Amino acid sequence: MKRIGVLTSGGDAPGMNAAVRAVVRKAIYHDMEVFGVYQGYHGLINGQIKQLDRGSVGDIIHRGGTMLRSARCLEFKTLEGQKQGIEQMEKFGIEGLVVIGGDGSYMGAKALTEHGFPCVGVPGTIDNDIPGTEFTIGFDTALNTVIDAIDKIRDTASSHERTFIVEVMGRHAGDLALWSGLAGGAETILIPEAPYDMNKVAAKLKRSQERGKKHSIIVVAEGVMTGNKFGAIIEELTGFDTRVSVLGHMQRGGTPSASDRVLASRLGAHAVELLLEGKGGRAVGIEQNQIIDYDIIEALSKPHKVDQRMYELSQELSI
Amino acid sequence: MKRIGVLTSGGDAPGMNAAVRAVVRKAIYHDMEVFGVYQGYHGLINGQIKQLDRGSVGDIIHRGGTMLRSARCLEFKTLEGQKQGIEQMEKFGIEGLVVIGGDGSYMGAKALTEHGFPCVGVPGTIDNDIPGTEFTIGFDTALNTVIDAIDKIRDTASSHERTFIVEVMGRHAGDLALWSGLAGGAETILIPEAPYDMNKVAAKLKRSQERGKKHSIIVVAEGVMTGNKFGAIIEELTGFDTRVSVLGHMQRGGTPSASDRVLASRLGAHAVELLLEGKGGRAVGIEQNQIIDYDIIEALSKPHKVDQRMYELSQELSI
Amino acid sequence: MKRIGVLTSGGDAPGMNAAVRAVVRKAIYHDMEVFGVYQGYHGLINGQIKQLDRGSVGDIIHRGGTMLRSARCLEFKTLEGQKQGIEQMEKFGIEGLVVIGGDGSYMGAKALTEHGFPCVGVPGTIDNDIPGTEFTIGFDTALNTVIDAIDKIRDTASSHERTFIVEVMGRHAGDLALWSGLAGGAETILIPEAPYDMNKVAAKLKRSQERGKKHSIIVVAEGVMTGNKFGAIIEELTGFDTRVSVLGHMQRGGTPSASDRVLASRLGAHAVELLLEGKGGRAVGIEQNQIIDYDIIEALSKPHKVDQRMYELSQELSI
Amino acid sequence: MKRIGVLTSGGDAPGMNAAVRAVVRKAIYHDMEVFGVYQGYHGLINGQIKQLDRGSVGDIIHRGGTMLRSARCLEFKTLEGQKQGIEQMEKFGIEGLVVIGGDGSYMGAKALTEHGFPCVGVPGTIDNDIPGTEFTIGFDTALNTVIDAIDKIRDTASSHERTFIVEVMGRHAGDLALWSGLAGGAETILIPEAPYDMNKVAAKLKRSQERGKKHSIIVVAEGVMTGNKFGAIIEELTGFDTRVSVLGHMQRGGTPSASDRVLASRLGAHAVELLLEGKGGRAVGIEQNQIIDYDIIEALSKPHKVDQRMYELSQELSI
Repeated sequence: MKRIGVLTSGGDAPGMNAAVRAVVRKAIYHDMEVFGVYQGYHGLINGQIKQLDRGSVGDIIHRGGTMLRSARCLEFKTLEGQKQGIEQMEKFGIEGLVVIGGDGSYMGAKALTEHGFPCVGVPGTIDNDIPGTEFTIGFDTALNTVIDAIDKIRDTASSHERTFIVEVMGRHAGDLALWSGLAGGAETILIPEAPYDMNKVAAKLKRSQERGKKHSIIVVAEGVMTGNKFGAIIEELTGFDTRVSVLGHMQRGGTPSASDRVLASRLGAHAVELLLEGKGGRAVGIEQNQIIDYDIIEALSKPHKVDQRMYELSQELSI
Repeated sequence: MKRIGVLTSGGDAPGMNAAVRAVVRKAIYHDMEVFGVYQGYHGLINGQIKQLDRGSVGDIIHRGGTMLRSARCLEFKTLEGQKQGIEQMEKFGIEGLVVIGGDGSYMGAKALTEHGFPCVGVPGTIDNDIPGTEFTIGFDTALNTVIDAIDKIRDTASSHERTFIVEVMGRHAGDLALWSGLAGGAETILIPEAPYDMNKVAAKLKRSQERGKKHSIIVVAEGVMTGNKFGAIIEELTGFDTRVSVLGHMQRGGTPSASDRVLASRLGAHAVELLLEGKGGRAVGIEQNQIIDYDIIEALSKPHKVDQRMYELSQELSI
Repeated sequence: MKRIGVLTSGGDAPGMNAAVRAVVRKAIYHDMEVFGVYQGYHGLINGQIKQLDRGSVGDIIHRGGTMLRSARCLEFKTLEGQKQGIEQMEKFGIEGLVVIGGDGSYMGAKALTEHGFPCVGVPGTIDNDIPGTEFTIGFDTALNTVIDAIDKIRDTASSHERTFIVEVMGRHAGDLALWSGLAGGAETILIPEAPYDMNKVAAKLKRSQERGKKHSIIVVAEGVMTGNKFGAIIEELTGFDTRVSVLGHMQRGGTPSASDRVLASRLGAHAVELLLEGKGGRAVGIEQNQIIDYDIIEALSKPHKVDQRMYELSQELSI
Repeated sequence: MKRIGVLTSGGDAPGMNAAVRAVVRKAIYHDMEVFGVYQGYHGLINGQIKQLDRGSVGDIIHRGGTMLRSARCLEFKTLEGQKQGIEQMEKFGIEGLVVIGGDGSYMGAKALTEHGFPCVGVPGTIDNDIPGTEFTIGFDTALNTVIDAIDKIRDTASSHERTFIVEVMGRHAGDLALWSGLAGGAETILIPEAPYDMNKVAAKLKRSQERGKKHSIIVVAEGVMTGNKFGAIIEELTGFDTRVSVLGHMQRGGTPSASDRVLASRLGAHAVELLLEGKGGRAVGIEQNQIIDYDIIEALSKPHKVDQRMYELSQELSI
């Protein structure tokens, strides 16, 4: 392969730029030409494609967001959309494509692969919910954003019987809530993957108060319920004063952490290595601290699991 | 005066510790003894009082929250509560008191002063709403917390017609919303002190979109309405997708900024100078970049005003 | 005036982008056209000039460095260089120029003014050493960078008799050292404007140690001497183990603080107001918390003074 | 085992507090009593030992440094020192000890084990140089500190042919330099484990300049040579202007990253599990993303290796 494309798709994740940079630099290092596809699959269909040289990815490794921009694209779910995308790439002589994004993005990559166009998926999402890889690009940065918020809340939690609730992202995956809760020393963590009992949550809060603890911090994944709803129930059950922070989209932005940049660099480079060997239909990931690749369909068929052991640990340490 | 007390009261503000440190160190420098009153006026009534030496305020200048803790105290609003507070101080031989806090805290200091007990108020609140001082301790740090959130949101604002709403603190004062909106480059800023017209806000959003702008960031002070309510109205008026971040109490915490630490150090030191001279019933502040003091009753009688010129500037620059 | 230019010159300072944005947006708000001059006076001579629209300054308010880039330019110190610069501007129909930078940059603005070309200087330098303004753009951010470093050093200063030395920028001006030392709780601060006696510095360190203090942090402005040299002298005089951090150019970068962005926005806007009124030969600044302007020659003729009272305060609080 | 001790030893690392907290909470969860040994082995010999309850480790998970303080202790290298340490622990009824620190600390733990006293080592050092574990507590935070500095330097690197040199910690281990250089997008990285040729480094700089690159960032581990020395050689070989930042001890401090807190929590908890089972002479670590334990002598006998593949990647991406 002498000419490849790269796009970012779905929700932004910090480190996507570092991954784009790695794809471009690594490809140029191996004398390939690289084309950036702007606006995700939407831009692929419409030919928003431009060659990237090594300078074009200078000074982006530390930037949040994605220089290629991103978009969701319903049209690409249709056969026609996919064919238009392939036509556009053929027009530019692009022989393989690196897709950086979450599971929705992988669906597109899988479809292209099934049409015979080699694609490699790179996991970029703060949700950490791509099966087959232990970590996704952006997760570590989002974690640090959440614990920074929790740390600040902890500073002010000095008086009254007050319960602070932090709603974090995660419709289906509780990794962000679980890890940030553990790292932030939260008293209680609610994730979509684990059952909970509001009466038990309330009882624990009351016990803490009776023991002399003045405040509690609770992390709730949005997939469980909204922070506001959760706060209302707690107030009803305990009579405690609650305060809610809804972090929202700030969790998707920010300068990527060192760890996310390194992960993005390694994954992006490996994606290029696969295309160099002519391999498509793969997803790259990190498992047991090694960069690996596996069938992209596998990534879509297995469910992502939250680390049960870590969930228990969070409960043991929040006594 | 040879023996003074210091307490923090009301909502926490980053830099309170730096102010406490300055009070303690400055007093010891002038051979006074200093007693920390814990838990605000509540602790004053109950005699939660302990002598502080210079080491006791080591390594706190950079800490959020307040080492003296804080509390709201209804009892101190009564004559009896106030007399008990004075008795406690007399028991410890304390002759003057530095009160660090917001306007509620100043009410207590004023009462003590009226009973003949010398008090000096130091403005500590993120709201920046104490009349007689241009800046309060904690405001600058809270500002930086808010713009950090706005910056992160900006990173991810890459696609779709999406409107990001950031709800910031400020029941009656719009300073935090105004300054953070200006510093964050927000398209629209809503503060309690300025009238607004939801139809005009919606019309501006639509115009921006027609001009090709993909996203807008709007900062709303909680005193105007909640972010959620605001978002719902905007969705109804424009049909745009909105995303809301409610920063909540994280705005009250965090490592104090350099500017807040310097301000706190200067104000705390000046409070001690006043007590050294036997002066009570004063509030300290910064005006025209000079440390000043003025009658504490004045601080409570004049309304705080938002900077109208800066509000206009925010509109001119967000075209 | 209907058409103005803007350039940044000299050492970068965080907030320069916010100033450029304010100039562009404010000018467009008043129906002026704005041209960016790239690479400072060097680009002015060579005609590296491009029109800026409001979109061209989108998403830069939070970026360190300067989108217009900067350069030092010896050629512009000559009459010929200056005339070429004016010719270039005339070619583009530019009638007035906003110059953002330090005192070196003001020299150029003054020369242009003397040739009859209206210029307004905007103070952008982390050194805070422009006479006539209490604060310069970038100073607050640099301060926060330095205290972040000091805070981190403080965390690790747990054992042994160890003296930590932090060398900060400031060839002639001690503001950065003084303010950061005060905000960081440094035991000793050395600035170019104040005499010092190495024997007294060493004696203070020894006294602290005898009192049981395990560590000390000393901030030295580079204009006094290098951190390494200072450390070597201290080791010789006290026998203490010293560790030196030389922060270097990281002090010039970073996301601008809220305060720097607001200051930059206000100053940039005021510069445009002056040109709107046809006024050149002015510098803008902040004094007594008001945006002011004054003769640019004044800015160059008066010496900048460090705040003596604050220097004393730093000594009183570091007992 | 019903009663265990915990100490931190050697150079501080961010996350040590999170590890102490995990040890204390996990032990109490299993109905053990925990004693904190202050000042490392020095305090062990001198009986600076105090019981810790769950509240004593509240609000420390986010703090840099170590609440147990640390110290280097020559005396503990002697048989007599070790016996005194064991006697002290016996006096308090302590049956097992968790030692958090670097390889020097492990030597002590190994000695105690050889005397029949069960010890478990927890890897806490920013150097990431403990064999048998892929990551040590503090490494991730230090990495983020370094890249924050590099990012800031990158912001200001706008003009002239200037070479920025960042000296980072690492006497024998290049992990910090390598990872931060890769994450920071450094053009050249020098580590103790890889040979280098100053002439080639200089030639690469010149080539970059000829290609139009205005600035370069070079990361040098202190174990290779000092930043100052490196800068002087580069200036001689290229004639380029160099600027050096020596980060020093700020790399050891700071709020621990989310990842370090989670790692510390998991490792600390596992150390307690081992003691619960009566196992000593072990070190805990993370390998292939699993928490493991292994013979502590193993940790001291195998050399730590830098990731050769990542070093190559850093070169490929810095073209």
